[in-house]
Amino acid sequence: MFNNSQIGGVFMKVIVVGGVAGGATAAARLRRISEKTEIVVFERGKYVSFANCGLPYYIGGEIKEREKLLVQTVEGMSKRFAMDIRNETEVTSINRNTKTVTAVHLPTGKEYTESYDKLLLSPGARPVIPPIPGLKESENLFTLRNIPDTDQINGWIEERKPAQAVIVGGGFIGLEMAENLYACGMDVTIVEMADQIMAPLDKEMASIVENRVRDFAELYLNDGVKEFRQKGNKIILSSGKELSSDLTILSIGVTPENKLAEQAGLALGERGGIIVDEYLQTDDPYIYAVGDAVETIDYILQKPVVVPLAWPANRQGRIVADTISGKPAAYPGTLGTAIAKVFDLTAASAGKNEKQLREAGINYKAVHIHPLSHAGYYPGAEQISMKLLFDPGQGTILGVQAVGKEGVDKRVDVISTAIRGNLTVFDLQEIELSYAPPYSSAKDPVNMLGYAASHVAEEEIDVVHAWEINKRIEAGEMLVDVRTPEEFKKGSVPGAVNIDLDSLRERLADFPKDKPVNITCQVGLRGYIAVRILKENGIEARNLSGGYKTYSELFRSQEMNALFI
Amino acid sequence: MFNNSQIGGVFMKVIVVGGVAGGATAAARLRRISEKTEIVVFERGKYVSFANCGLPYYIGGEIKEREKLLVQTVEGMSKRFAMDIRNETEVTSINRNTKTVTAVHLPTGKEYTESYDKLLLSPGARPVIPPIPGLKESENLFTLRNIPDTDQINGWIEERKPAQAVIVGGGFIGLEMAENLYACGMDVTIVEMADQIMAPLDKEMASIVENRVRDFAELYLNDGVKEFRQKGNKIILSSGKELSSDLTILSIGVTPENKLAEQAGLALGERGGIIVDEYLQTDDPYIYAVGDAVETIDYILQKPVVVPLAWPANRQGRIVADTISGKPAAYPGTLGTAIAKVFDLTAASAGKNEKQLREAGINYKAVHIHPLSHAGYYPGAEQISMKLLFDPGQGTILGVQAVGKEGVDKRVDVISTAIRGNLTVFDLQEIELSYAPPYSSAKDPVNMLGYAASHVAEEEIDVVHAWEINKRIEAGEMLVDVRTPEEFKKGSVPGAVNIDLDSLRERLADFPKDKPVNITCQVGLRGYIAVRILKENGIEARNLSGGYKTYSELFRSQEMNALFI
Ligand SMILES: Cc1cc2nc3c(=O)[nH]c(=O)nc-3n(C[C@H](O)[C@H](O)[C@H](O)COP(=O)(O)OP(=O)(O)OC[C@H]3O[C@@H](n4cnc5c(N)ncnc54)[C@H](O)[C@@H]3O)c2cc1C
Ligand SMILES: Cc1cc2nc3c(=O)[nH]c(=O)nc-3n(C[C@H](O)[C@H](O)[C@H](O)COP(=O)(O)OP(=O)(O)OC[C@H]3O[C@@H](n4cnc5c(N)ncnc54)[C@H](O)[C@@H]3O)c2cc1C
Ligand SMILES: CC(C)(COP(=O)(O)OP(=O)(O)OC[C@H]1O[C@@H](n2cnc3c(N)ncnc32)[C@H](O)[C@@H]1OP(=O)(O)O)[C@@H](O)C(=O)NCCC(=O)NCCS
Ligand SMILES: CC(C)(COP(=O)(O)OP(=O)(O)OC[C@H]1O[C@@H](n2cnc3c(N)ncnc32)[C@H](O)[C@@H]1OP(=O)(O)O)[C@@H](O)C(=O)NCCC(=O)NCCS
Repeated sequence: MFNNSQIGGVFMKVIVVGGVAGGATAAARLRRISEKTEIVVFERGKYVSFANCGLPYYIGGEIKEREKLLVQTVEGMSKRFAMDIRNETEVTSINRNTKTVTAVHLPTGKEYTESYDKLLLSPGARPVIPPIPGLKESENLFTLRNIPDTDQINGWIEERKPAQAVIVGGGFIGLEMAENLYACGMDVTIVEMADQIMAPLDKEMASIVENRVRDFAELYLNDGVKEFRQKGNKIILSSGKELSSDLTILSIGVTPENKLAEQAGLALGERGGIIVDEYLQTDDPYIYAVGDAVETIDYILQKPVVVPLAWPANRQGRIVADTISGKPAAYPGTLGTAIAKVFDLTAASAGKNEKQLREAGINYKAVHIHPLSHAGYYPGAEQISMKLLFDPGQGTILGVQAVGKEGVDKRVDVISTAIRGNLTVFDLQEIELSYAPPYSSAKDPVNMLGYAASHVAEEEIDVVHAWEINKRIEAGEMLVDVRTPEEFKKGSVPGAVNIDLDSLRERLADFPKDKPVNITCQVGLRGYIAVRILKENGIEARNLSGGYKTYSELFRSQEMNALFI
Repeated sequence: MFNNSQIGGVFMKVIVVGGVAGGATAAARLRRISEKTEIVVFERGKYVSFANCGLPYYIGGEIKEREKLLVQTVEGMSKRFAMDIRNETEVTSINRNTKTVTAVHLPTGKEYTESYDKLLLSPGARPVIPPIPGLKESENLFTLRNIPDTDQINGWIEERKPAQAVIVGGGFIGLEMAENLYACGMDVTIVEMADQIMAPLDKEMASIVENRVRDFAELYLNDGVKEFRQKGNKIILSSGKELSSDLTILSIGVTPENKLAEQAGLALGERGGIIVDEYLQTDDPYIYAVGDAVETIDYILQKPVVVPLAWPANRQGRIVADTISGKPAAYPGTLGTAIAKVFDLTAASAGKNEKQLREAGINYKAVHIHPLSHAGYYPGAEQISMKLLFDPGQGTILGVQAVGKEGVDKRVDVISTAIRGNLTVFDLQEIELSYAPPYSSAKDPVNMLGYAASHVAEEEIDVVHAWEINKRIEAGEMLVDVRTPEEFKKGSVPGAVNIDLDSLRERLADFPKDKPVNITCQVGLRGYIAVRILKENGIEARNLSGGYKTYSELFRSQEMNALFI
């Protein structure tokens, strides 16, 4: 099956650059495929196979033992997989003509070359460090990528007992660090240049996270760092605002670790990722690349994309070993399924968001729902806010986003699976999910999302979105809130009038017949029922997607933000 | 779109029999489709739309407020959906010639007929009550199906303060009741006629649950009730054993509530289910049926099956309303995805189990794995025991079973979705699931199941099962346990010899070259690596599926059981 582990009768020698997610996985698989392949792994760090993703939790104290971060050790892995691991050794150049690499043993400075039959690059990514004035002089500024970074941050915390922490960048790592520095007892401020945190989510979904984050940390959106002063103790923002910081984490993103590849003249993509084909082969047929360093194909858009996540790195490492060993295994592209714990919330997504679809010029529709994580009558059910993006013609699923507590991961994973199975929004109605009261409802949130999206796809229902409704009201359209008067009193969309769903049939005369009316409720369910009643009575009506819940989260975040400007 | 809500210019009248899961859902959807359809719902009980599935937890006190069980009330539902709900009214016959039903208002005994254009039956199921001597005289014997049953059980508990409870039947409802009566402070004994509890699981998977259940309750397998004595206070088992009981729950299964259908001459299946076509239409074109009362098609086997679960009832109720309203919606068959909380464990399954596949004469293979629910280095990860059944030729997924705590529901739901998407075991490797340390691993358990199954499907790896290994050892085959000596000392398969995986390469000479050797470890991962090393060195080897974990759970349950016989 694996016919390539011998080359001309001699056993193949594979060099792997990078001994963590993609590299270690590929090396282990290479050995499982053949006992004869010669495997040399170069890792410039001291450790191989460590849990990058656990680092924030080790800093925060949630993960207590340091050894837990070492999924495998150099010794353990060398022994089990009979491989030659050269840690603390950096590959400094690739000599494609001679099929060798030049490596430097960092502790001694000893330089040597090593030959390969096949070369696999899994060098990862490095944190983006922009040229901000005063950055180099900042002593309390850290990025987080590996164990030495972690040790430095921990050392600083132990020595300096920082009280004020500033996180620059509201992405996954920044938010995880916010949570963990808060857990260490610090006052945390997050500064984000965009108008929202967590780029994979759309603004109204990110708002839910933002509103919760503000219970634990200060959050500045639409603002960036202009300058570091006083060795980093003072941070000047673009808005002019000044922050004090005892510890600053710079987490504005990562960029492919592409120096080696660039020097070797391998083709790089626009965002710096090493270009590989579906077999993860670079434009040099003897060189493969995987993980954070490569540009892959976006599964939905079928366009180049760089996705620095552990699942793709591990998966690519696994299959490239098969390809290298002579059983070509294609990588079908990355969906970008991602998740993060942000304080007590979970936020997850897969596929494309609305911003990306708009940019790509793709026709889409969106629906929002807020079902309970499990049966409402069983204790502990929590609301999950979900958004589905889909092609209204075919019902093709383009993306999903979810924010909540229990069961967010489950629903996003189910929908990721549905996307891989080419299931449509119509099919989501049909997915038979496990139901008992502690786990779900007899109609699971995924089914509900299928129903809500199908209504729109089949043009049974027209929706209006939270960010459009104010303009429509200003333009003279009617918005009817069909919740109970008690609910309405506690807050509604400005300009809405209240007609309880259960008296709607008696109030039909109050509705205009000549123009569509907008309907809202708390989460969209009663609004939907109201729209059905109205439509069947000859009144055109649209439902506010996600109801007052989506609206109020979006506007609460925007208002909070305005307060800071 | 819905072209049938008028019949000959007159609006349609639909009668629904049964106002809970299937019936209430259909009625609500009928109204959402059209404001004009006349909808009459007959429910012989006092309540409509209640949470059957919550009843055990209300008895156990987990659900505190009685109103929580009422998802909708007669008044609420009548008002919102403008329907005519006749509760406490039993339909006693269907008069197909006149297209009428005869109904009796139970409190008054008033009988009348009501005409229909379309009739929908969702009468549910009733508990099986076998003709056991002394059963009728038992005063402390209850079944659980509805709110009055619940009230009776609660009344008995309050009045009699039972100390000893006996559960007859180890299915989902029986086990939920065991947990909840234990929560009420009772000593609980479970009696099950089969050699295992939880029929949807195979024995070695059920064993894991059995071993945990025995920490809370006494469990008698392979035993049944022969006789009730002393008004039920004494229970004589087939084995001769005598039990005392202050409260007995009879939960040996349910059977379709088919009396009405039978009297009306509608076709019934072998197990008593009303036969319907894919449009849920009976053999009378004006009569439809859904839910626990019907026989549907098994999604995997494409053979008739009766699946009394809430998801199918709700789904069928939803789509039959569309069909009745003139937009035919087919039901593709039932996968039987099911889940139950059993004390602190969760057990779930979808598709077929090994017993059913064997009976159906279907070619299959099985693999077992025991991955962690999330990254091992992040606190709180728990082992999930999983079994996958698949067609070794095509890789078609035939069934999945899982037992554990966190994340069992997620993995079974993902695989249910994969089955619906026609994904194979090879595709399971490719499913991109959300990963951050609190939720999963960079290779999710579902991916791992895909890897392990693909090895077998591609004949890269041969597995041997826990229930076969003793015989193989007796027949002179070698079993090598590749765990560390410390692990081995704590217990292994009798007859196994210990060679630590990490010294395997030095011990190759100790292996026979002429016959296959069996390998085991703790969960199957190291065993797999060992098998790969041996194979590549010319030694035929098979891996014990699920390792010592699966073996020890199976035999511990069997031994515990033997103690009771
Ligand atoms: C703090 C943090 C949290 C994260 N959390 C998550 C998460 O929750 N979920 C998720 O999906 N992803 C997460 N990630 C991302 C995930 O860790 C990466 O996607 C994954 O590790 C990428 O694998 P890789 O093999 O491409 O690179 P890496 O795992 O980074 O490995 C690359 C290795 O190559 C070495 N190297 C580079 N160049 C050379 C050279 N020239 N010579 C020798 N060695 C070299 C580096 O030292 C490095 O150890 C997180 C990352 C970080 C830093
Ligand atoms: C204790 C318990 C726990 C359960 N737990 C789960 C679970 O965790 N997960 C799961 O998936 N399923 C569970 N179920 C099963 C689930 O409740 C059923 O599958 C579902 O309710 C079936 O819906 P149905 O509409 O077919 O029948 P039902 O919901 O039972 O409704 C049928 C109704 O019809 C009425 N009726 C019958 N005949 C007549 C007549 N002639 N005239 C008028 N009315 C009539 C009955 O009074 C009944 O109210 C559980 C069931 C019970 C009893
Ligand atoms: C530790 C590490 C080297 C392990 O790599 P690996 O051996 O490929 O991965 P695993 O230990 O999960 O084992 C997977 C293999 O075991 C097999 N396997 C797992 N459980 C099994 C079981 N119960 N029975 C049989 N086979 C099993 C899988 O099929 C797979 O084998 P294959 O690739 O030959 O098909 C690598 O994952 C790593 O370095 N991880 C840490 C770094 C990282 O991922 N960081 C980012 C996230 S924090
Ligand atoms: C209460 C009951 C009558 C409700 O039936 P229902 O109205 O069909 O179900 P729901 O309230 O969940 O609403 C589902 C509808 O709302 C729509 N919906 C739900 N959330 C929505 C949202 N946020 N936006 C728009 N539409 C939404 C769905 O699309 C669906 O409409 P459709 O069928 O017309 O497509 C019925 O489920 C019932 O009796 N349940 C209790 C009995 C039971 O199921 N027992 C067994 C389990 S314990």
